[in-house]
Amino acid sequence: MMSETAPETTPDIGRIEAAAGRIRGVARRTPMLSDPLLDRIAGRRILVKAECLQVTGSFKFRGAWSAVSALVAAGRARGVLAMSSGNHAQGVALAAARHGLAAVIVMPADAPEAKIGNTRALGAEVVLYDRQREDRDAIGAALAAERDLAIVRPFDDAEVIAGQGTAGLEIAEDAAAAGILEAPVLVCCGGGGLASGIALALAARAPGLRVQTCEPEGFDDTARSLAAGTRLGNAPGARTLCDAIVTPAPGLMTFPILARLAGPGIAMPDEACLDAMALAWRHLRIVLEPGGAVALAAALFRPDLAPGPAVIAVATGGNVDPPVYARAMARLDDPAFFPIPA
Amino acid sequence: MMSETAPETTPDIGRIEAAAGRIRGVARRTPMLSDPLLDRIAGRRILVKAECLQVTGSFKFRGAWSAVSALVAAGRARGVLAMSSGNHAQGVALAAARHGLAAVIVMPADAPEAKIGNTRALGAEVVLYDRQREDRDAIGAALAAERDLAIVRPFDDAEVIAGQGTAGLEIAEDAAAAGILEAPVLVCCGGGGLASGIALALAARAPGLRVQTCEPEGFDDTARSLAAGTRLGNAPGARTLCDAIVTPAPGLMTFPILARLAGPGIAMPDEACLDAMALAWRHLRIVLEPGGAVALAAALFRPDLAPGPAVIAVATGGNVDPPVYARAMARLDDPAFFPIPA
Repeated sequence: MMSETAPETTPDIGRIEAAAGRIRGVARRTPMLSDPLLDRIAGRRILVKAECLQVTGSFKFRGAWSAVSALVAAGRARGVLAMSSGNHAQGVALAAARHGLAAVIVMPADAPEAKIGNTRALGAEVVLYDRQREDRDAIGAALAAERDLAIVRPFDDAEVIAGQGTAGLEIAEDAAAAGILEAPVLVCCGGGGLASGIALALAARAPGLRVQTCEPEGFDDTARSLAAGTRLGNAPGARTLCDAIVTPAPGLMTFPILARLAGPGIAMPDEACLDAMALAWRHLRIVLEPGGAVALAAALFRPDLAPGPAVIAVATGGNVDPPVYARAMARLDDPAFFPIPA
Repeated sequence: MMSETAPETTPDIGRIEAAAGRIRGVARRTPMLSDPLLDRIAGRRILVKAECLQVTGSFKFRGAWSAVSALVAAGRARGVLAMSSGNHAQGVALAAARHGLAAVIVMPADAPEAKIGNTRALGAEVVLYDRQREDRDAIGAALAAERDLAIVRPFDDAEVIAGQGTAGLEIAEDAAAAGILEAPVLVCCGGGGLASGIALALAARAPGLRVQTCEPEGFDDTARSLAAGTRLGNAPGARTLCDAIVTPAPGLMTFPILARLAGPGIAMPDEACLDAMALAWRHLRIVLEPGGAVALAAALFRPDLAPGPAVIAVATGGNVDPPVYARAMARLDDPAFFPIPA
């Protein structure tokens, strides 16, 4: 029989606080970065929660550790299985390895090489599938049943959402220290695990900070769902560089949280993400992947959609293959690339 | 008359603690980064103090703020002047601007464009000179006298050393939290302000952590001086990509501290720094400049010179022009570039 992490429970601030206790000293308390020249380009204060500096290079380690440690505490795990394009994969692989558990990760064959390689290097068995022709969920469910592995879902899991929410506790603290009590908090959004976790944490700890989800154009299911008040999917056929946050529709568990506490959502083109990656290189000295730069792009280029004198953007990941990164770096060859206003 | 920051005083742990109080909430408490796959490549634990994430992109802001705030508190400053290839320049420019002081920065005309541009953008007047033919000290002294500016020296200044030493307090805390009580602490070294400040802080707070200075080949004046027990200069004519840490000889104030508390020094070739920059991109998701990567290069590639199961490297800066960075990134096109051992 396939065992799973309890989907019937709901995440709340108590569960986030408990997760924060479990990840302390394991996950990194990432810094809130800013730069006076980046602020000048943006015309306002931009604070960047640098989750690309998280262990395994994305926020996903928070939720993975939260879920795996909860499974272990409940005595329910012999091993774990995750389905992921790469960041959740690495987070689960490392969390499992540190708990002494086997990990099987089902990944699309066209995921970035770095993500596949790192997931293997972190000790997981990687099972590749064809994103166009095979059913990831069926492959994962069959493997989990066959080997008695607990599935760690990427977002629709109360312990995963609680783990991601620990970033929200830190944002609340750091924003208060920076004197920011009211601001949009822009969060890169795939299935909505991070956005919903942060929204829960902020509602409890910093109610003047409001989450707005940021997605790639063509994959703005959350933005449209928030506007419609009901879960909507994406039209097939769209493409994006933001591999980390390509999901068919908002989560069953995450969407009600987002509908209550977040929005409106923002969709950004890939080119704006590449611009944001280049500016993050130049002014923040951090490496972002396209899907990790969507929120920063929105903060920089769409103040009309997320207004205010200060804005917080969560830079969610930095696992990117060099050829994609080169496209961002090439922008810096142009001396007229976002010059610093006098 | 030329006013100066008090060179007669000596830095000590009390002065470092006082500087820590002044920079709190202004400078960033930078994270100590690590990565399990980088550890596997190195064959031991590597912890990286990411000062490239400091305000203005290098540790120099700590010392600049410490010195400028001390001048202001003493009521001695109408404006400040600094001589710097770029990182001290940006630190002093921003510290002066935030104190409402004028800043004049004397920079070599061949400094990286990004450093010159950022220094201007931070509000300083930049005076360029020819590194081969003109005397920087004479130019700076004349300007300071003419305009009644206080010179903020890059390293031979007790308040600057104290400011840089605040990084040492953080290293002591973070190493203890990671269970590391004995380890080499590798520090990129030009004039020795950061290395001596950290050495003073560690001697008081974490005596099992010992500073070793890291320099580019051809500019290993500190390493040779530590070996000889007396200040030695560099032979003329050498070249390096590590523009941030090209100094003619150890400082008069810094060298006695280093002779007492640090060493042996390590010299690294530029190519190793580029390798370290590429690995920092891939595994730590931070942007380093060549002179900011020397210590990480030594930690990775010269365990024979800095032995132990764990090593701490200070990544001192991330202000680099894209063409130099491209040389580091090009390494990642080779699939055999430091593969992760099984």
